[in-house]
Order: sequence, then structure tokens, then C-alpha cells
Amino acid sequence: MGRRIRIFDTTLRDGEQTPGVNLNISDKLRIAHVLAGLGVDVIEAGFPASSQDDFVAVRRVSEQIRGPVICALARAEERDIRRAAEALEKAEKSRIHIFIASSDIHLQYKLKMTREQVRARTAASVRLARSLCADVQFSAEDASRSDPAFLCELFETAIENGASTVNIADTVGYAVPDEFAALIRRVMGGTRNLGDTVVSVHCHNDLGMATANSLAALMAGAGQVECTLNGLGERAGNAAAEEIVMALQTRHDLFGLEHGVDTRMFSRASKTVASVTGVYVPQNKPVVGKNAFVHDAGIHQHGVLANPLTYEIMTPQSVGLTGTGLALGKLSGHHAFEEKLSELGLVVDPAVSLAAFNAFKDLACRKKDVSDDDVRALVEEAVYDSHIVDGYELDTFQIQSGNRMQAMALVSLSRKGEKFTETGAGEGPIDASFNAINRIVGQDFKLLFYNIKAVTGGTDALGEVRVRITDAAGHEFPGKGVSTDIIKSSIRAYINAINRSMIQGDTGA
Amino acid sequence: MGRRIRIFDTTLRDGEQTPGVNLNISDKLRIAHVLAGLGVDVIEAGFPASSQDDFVAVRRVSEQIRGPVICALARAEERDIRRAAEALEKAEKSRIHIFIASSDIHLQYKLKMTREQVRARTAASVRLARSLCADVQFSAEDASRSDPAFLCELFETAIENGASTVNIADTVGYAVPDEFAALIRRVMGGTRNLGDTVVSVHCHNDLGMATANSLAALMAGAGQVECTLNGLGERAGNAAAEEIVMALQTRHDLFGLEHGVDTRMFSRASKTVASVTGVYVPQNKPVVGKNAFVHDAGIHQHGVLANPLTYEIMTPQSVGLTGTGLALGKLSGHHAFEEKLSELGLVVDPAVSLAAFNAFKDLACRKKDVSDDDVRALVEEAVYDSHIVDGYELDTFQIQSGNRMQAMALVSLSRKGEKFTETGAGEGPIDASFNAINRIVGQDFKLLFYNIKAVTGGTDALGEVRVRITDAAGHEFPGKGVSTDIIKSSIRAYINAINRSMIQGDTGA
Repeated sequence: MGRRIRIFDTTLRDGEQTPGVNLNISDKLRIAHVLAGLGVDVIEAGFPASSQDDFVAVRRVSEQIRGPVICALARAEERDIRRAAEALEKAEKSRIHIFIASSDIHLQYKLKMTREQVRARTAASVRLARSLCADVQFSAEDASRSDPAFLCELFETAIENGASTVNIADTVGYAVPDEFAALIRRVMGGTRNLGDTVVSVHCHNDLGMATANSLAALMAGAGQVECTLNGLGERAGNAAAEEIVMALQTRHDLFGLEHGVDTRMFSRASKTVASVTGVYVPQNKPVVGKNAFVHDAGIHQHGVLANPLTYEIMTPQSVGLTGTGLALGKLSGHHAFEEKLSELGLVVDPAVSLAAFNAFKDLACRKKDVSDDDVRALVEEAVYDSHIVDGYELDTFQIQSGNRMQAMALVSLSRKGEKFTETGAGEGPIDASFNAINRIVGQDFKLLFYNIKAVTGGTDALGEVRVRITDAAGHEFPGKGVSTDIIKSSIRAYINAINRSMIQGDTGA
Repeated sequence: MGRRIRIFDTTLRDGEQTPGVNLNISDKLRIAHVLAGLGVDVIEAGFPASSQDDFVAVRRVSEQIRGPVICALARAEERDIRRAAEALEKAEKSRIHIFIASSDIHLQYKLKMTREQVRARTAASVRLARSLCADVQFSAEDASRSDPAFLCELFETAIENGASTVNIADTVGYAVPDEFAALIRRVMGGTRNLGDTVVSVHCHNDLGMATANSLAALMAGAGQVECTLNGLGERAGNAAAEEIVMALQTRHDLFGLEHGVDTRMFSRASKTVASVTGVYVPQNKPVVGKNAFVHDAGIHQHGVLANPLTYEIMTPQSVGLTGTGLALGKLSGHHAFEEKLSELGLVVDPAVSLAAFNAFKDLACRKKDVSDDDVRALVEEAVYDSHIVDGYELDTFQIQSGNRMQAMALVSLSRKGEKFTETGAGEGPIDASFNAINRIVGQDFKLLFYNIKAVTGGTDALGEVRVRITDAAGHEFPGKGVSTDIIKSSIRAYINAINRSMIQGDTGA
């Protein structure tokens, strides 16, 4: 057995910094469950000082998730550290993760601090964190563009004051593997009190090298990698967990390193993260993309038929792409549906499962084979609806439209047993429906964002609509709807967003 | 100035092997123009022996594109090589690219040939190619899993017989940078007659390391990299041209290598490839993704405001993301529209430009600001329609639908001055419309694939619909439609596919 390395997942923290992604507490909990099932070593659950929602999310994850270490991010500031400790109180195993920039450019332009001040701040922060939590990680932001000598000094200070992990962040995705490996060796050799402190790396993908940089660092002696599912994260994203782990596994001959991840969970974990965040996985994404195991050229197909090893270095089974699961149809009962949810790793409340099952029965009457992706979409919608109490529900709608006429919609919603009906005109049937709904709710919600995606490519595919609306005060609310009729998906998404606007704070809990 | 390396683009060959991508001749020509504008050194235009369409595509690219070397792929077989030479006849500069597998696993299971047979075949093929074309490239498929000693022997044979470039393919995306660099050095040191033969590499992204492997190979002495725009290609795709070039540029301090690419063309080139192939660029794609230059976290935004260098290692301008171009609105005339096309690098026929302008005027009445992406979508649609002669055109449609009623559509199409009107019922308004159209054309086309995408995220976004239909004989035809009304987009896409089915062979030329 080789050296065991640690997988530190930051999907819930850096991944959530993906532009356009905004996870509520229940979203974060669902992803945390998936990460725990995957077997990552550390879950960075959030940045508690950044918002009340993030604080509550870290707290809930700490209460509910057992297995991985739960980590909370903090700037090197007293308030941040105390908030992090408070949010982590109920965790089985907790870690406070303090960061401060170490590059001259960040010191000069962003922090406006000297190296000595950064060092003093590091000492005080790590000491405080260590008094509140036994496990403290210290990160040097923009480490790859920092003076290695200063980096070593900073790490010495952090270790002296109680950090047991020091993290080298390639914050701007600037590193190149050989050079990055040399930096790791330099730091490991030059940090005098390193002892058994774990050296960690955090790589961004701006030049497309996050995975290679992470692996080069592990080979050079790093013991932990920070990564995200599907490579989510700021700008071009972070190193993708599935790429790093599958490279370690596929090239074990070369790396000789061990990890604790159950790779067969990658496919479903990736799909859950995609549907919760709304950031779809590109078809040519390594490991988890739709095409990752598809051979297009005749020559390749011929080779794979002769022997899969000719063109396959990993098996689809190794990442959980079995494709041989139970098929659902209109005769499938609640029991078969529940089995499918468990096969897909979709852990939901009984009420959500029942709502999704009802939607499934409805769909199965219209669609011959209900695919796994369809089931996922129905469950996602049910989850989205599940924390709504006393919200509006769609009763009926009718639309009339065409290219030589203005569109018209008649929509009936019900709420608390009361029924409301209104008409609206608009630019196309969806706009007309939204105008009718605005009249019913008596508010002039504005649509900020509208996106639609076919869940499967078939003729009777479900259309998944995501919207973001804003109320008069400028608060934004997301909504999601799924149906085989894209007008109905759109209406459901709009109503979902309006219902969310009526819940104070929309903590989703 | 450092060593000048060659960019060999294979978007039109390996990129076209992306599952689901099927480019016709006019699609290929549009991409070839973009590649020439970008300044790549070699354009691999196709694999002429694989189909008549591919043969014609390579021939047209050879006739029309000046600047880059035009390359055609061939197996190590006489017929393939002669077809390649024939297709390249009119090229200003041409190259025949011969490949044969070199790994034992490919020899045993796929080729069922001995090493000696592969060597003899290599000698004969390269010799033949060299008699037909002055520039011959030889590729060892699955080279990264081959015995390096045999690889050197094979390259010696190829060079002896006239190859001036030898390519090391990591066909299955198995390599890791350090190991791959060592292989390059081993081959460069061990190929006795190497002389000034250019060593090339071709990397796949199955483990997320295609870019890093390509760069490691260049550092080790390789003189050419094979890559694709947006990282298209078999399975997880090929190394992405934009990542390799921007890494060379951003880290010139480290690499010290020169290239001939105009990086300011990357943004538009990426967008053209995405809209022609239908493979959308993921938002977190390095260099060309929507988020590549977006800073989400407050801390990052604060830093960028203080000094962009804190979090930006490349400028958006360096990849052509200017965002300061001409804004179009309903008062913009044909001249302003043409200027916008030229600003976006959209080179189209006057007839296409006029059709797109008319669609633009229509859109501008409904949408306040017409974005660059809107203009692109309108032009794409006009291009799709442009080679249709005597096809059906949408006159009017009306739909009625709702969740408690069956949908109904009334559609009028005209063709050659004649008008046809029919009604149809269906599962939702789109299905109903398609059924009405089937009645008009008197054929029972089946919808195989339907996808919809909002071009922009706004409230009045264009919806772009792509369909694939099949006729009674099982032939497949793609179609595309764009409109602010998604029902209209769908109808237009369906009609477009039907019109394509009526053109013999659909060569798109």
C-alpha cells in the first residue's frame, strides 16, 4: 500500500462561488450527503462569516453529516474565526480553515499590509482558532505567486501556533506542473518545523492544468488536495475531484498513492451536483461527461468490440455508470420507484418521494420509458417544492398564441383552498402566462433570468426550466419547474420562485 | 525569441468525432475560415476515405483556404492515401497524415499484425504518400502505451521513407506530464535519423491532463501540438487549442516558446465552433467559458477593483472578449449590422447577411438590446437556411394548449408560391405543430432528438432549438430554428430539417 492522501472537497464553498450558483441550506445538505457517501475526507461546508445563510448551512451540515471532517472557512480575523467555531459546534469532527494572502501583489494592493503584519496576523489567528478547535488548517492565498521563502516563514508561524495542515493555493490558476511540484518540494524542505503537518494544495483551472498541478503536488509529497465535483468554482473552476481520483486509480502504477473515495459513486454524485447547482456537466467532461465512455469513430468502435482495453483506460462501471438498472414504466408502483431512488442515491424525505412518485405516474402515462435522468429531474422539482407551505399551486392554464397574433393566457392558481383566475397577454405564451400570474399575486415580479433544458434528447423529453425573479424591493428568488410541456415547466418554475419569495429569508430549511 | 512551435488544429477531424457532432461541408468551411483567421499552422480538414462527404469537405477546404497547411488523414492503406492526395489536389500547401497503431494491445486485438508487418506497412505507406505529396506526417496511434524502442524503430522507418513530421498520440488519454515528457525525450534521443523531423504530440483529455501533457511535451522538445477548439474530440475530447496557446502566452517566462496564433480571435472562434457544432461551451471552460473572467466572491471582486493583477493572469481583451463593441437596437441599419458581423468575425454571403438582417429587424422590435450572441444565433439560422432552394417556409401558426386539454395547432406553410394549411393535435403545442406539418408534407417524419437552449439569460431571450428527424427510409436530418417564441423556434427547426431532407445527399454545398 502506498501513502494515503486526503481528499478535501470544497464544492460547497469554492464550488458555490461559481458565478450564477446560489445554494440554499437544503441544497447544501443534499450535496453534503452525496459527498459523505462518496467518502471524501474533508467537506468544506461554507464560509460562516460571509452570510447568515452560510452560517446556518455549516451548522446544519455539522449536525447531520457523520464521517468526513466538516470544515469552515475564515479570514484571519477574530470575528470570522469565532463564527466558524460556532457554526461547527455540533460537528463530529471539525476543522477551522484560516486563509490570508501571501503574494506581494496581494499584500500591496488588496491587504495593504506588510509581510510582518501578515505574519503577526497569522500567528494570532491560528492561535485563536486552535483554542476553539483541535484541527486548524492554514492557507496562503496566491501562494503560487509568492516568495517561497516568505511562504515557508508564514507556514512556520502557522505551525508554531497550532496549524496541522498548511495549504498552498494556486488561487489564480497560474501554476504549471513541474514548477508547482518544485514549489511543494521547496516548501516541504524549507519549513523548519514541518514535522507531520499535512501539506495541502488548492488548484484553479484557468490554464486547464488544475488536475495535473494537483497530481504533480501529490507526487512531490503533498498529502491533501482541495477539489470540487464537476470542477465547479471561481472563474474556470477548481481541480475536479473525479479527475484527480480517477487518475490516481487508473495510473496507480505510476502514482502509487491511496485514497478513500468510492469511485462508483462519481456518476450519481456528479449528476446530483449538476441538478442542484444548475451547472450542467459538459458532454466531453472527463470521467463524468455523457461522452466520456462513448466511442464515435468506426475504427474506435471496431477496436472496443475486439477488446475494450484498446480504447478504454477506465471502465464505465468503475465510476458507477452501470446503465443496467431497473427500467420504470407506467405499471411501476411506489415500491419500484423507491428502489430506483435508492439505486440513484437520491436520499429524500418520504413526502418528497411521494410527490415525485405522483409526478412520475403522470409522466409515465405520456412517456413509454422513464429514464433515470427523468426521475432525477422529477425528484429535484419535488425537493424544490418541498419546503413551501401555503404556497400557490397551479390548477389550470390555457394559452393561445401564434406568429401573427399576440399571445394570451388564462391561468388558475389555488392557495389555502382558495382559487384565483386571471388572464394576461404578452410576447409569446410564456410571457403571457407570467403576466397573468403577476395579476393573481398582485405583485409586479420581474424575470431576471430564464433558462430551459431538455432533460433527455427524446421526443417526449422533460423540459427543465430555471428562472430567477426579483420583487419590488430588488430581492432575487430562484425557481424551477419540470414538465413534458415547456409552457407548463415555465409556469411551474415561475410559481416556485414566487412561493420562495413569500418565505422569510428563504433558508430552505 | 524562443523556439517557434506549430499549432496543428484537428477540430474538423478529431473534433468532428465528438459524439453527436455531424458537420456538413458548409459547416466545415465556416470553421476552416475561422481557423485560418486564428492563424493555426495546420488544419486537419478530414479523413477523405471515410466518406464521400468528408472527401468533398477536404477538397473544398483545399480550394478555398489559403495560409495554413491543409492536412488529410489516411490509414496506412493505399486507397486511403490516394483519396487523401486527390482531396488535397487544390491546396496551396498540403499534407498527408498517415496513422497506424504501435501498441502491442492494438497490434494484437485490433490490427492482428506483428511489429514487423506494421513496420513494413509504414514503410510502404509513407513512401506512397511521399510520391503524391511533399509533406507527409506519420502518427503512431496509442504511442503512449507502446514500447518506446518499437516506437523509435517505427519512426526511423517513417523518416527513412520521407515523413517530415512524426506524431506521438496519447490516443486513450493515459499519459501523465512527467512520464509523457520522458517519452518524448526518449523518442527524440532514440530515433537515429531524426534530423530536423518535427516531433508532434496528440493528447486526449480522459484524465483531465491533455493540456498539461501537451505543454510538457513541448518543453521536452516537441515542435508541434495537435489540438481542437473548445477541446472537442472523441470521448472527453482533445487538448484545447485555447488552453495550450494561452498557457504558452501567459507563462512565456517559463516556456519561452513562440506561436503564430492571434489570441484575440479565440473568443469568436470558440463561439463559432460552438454554434456550428451544437456543442455548447461550459461556463467554467478555461479561457473561453462565460465565467472565465468573472469574479464571484466579494473578496475577489474587491481585489480586482484594487488591481486586476490580484486575480487576473490574462486580460479578457487578450482573448478577444472586448464587450465594448457596437450595440445594436431597432434603429440600427444594414450598414451597422454588417459592421457588427465583421466585428464578430462572421464572414457570410450577402444573401445570408440580408436574411439575418431581416430577422434582426424583427427581433429588435421586440427586444431592447440585441446582444452579440443574439446576432450570432440569427446568422447561424440564416446560414442553416441559406442552401435551401424551393423549401417550405413558415407562413403562420396558431396554437391552443393547456394542462387540462389536448394541444392543437394550425400551421400554414408556403412552397414555390403555393400555400398549405393543416391542423394537428398532440402532446403539447410543439408536438401538435409537428403533426400538422407532417400532414402538409405528406410524410411521417419522426423526431429523434430535440434540444432547446436560451441564447441569452434575459427575459426576452432567443430560444435556439435543434432537432434531428428521420424519414421513412431511416435517413437522419438535423434542423435548427431561432426565435424569441420557443414554439416558433421549434417549428422553424422542424421545417429546416424537412427542407434538408429534400436536398439530395444534403452536402450543404
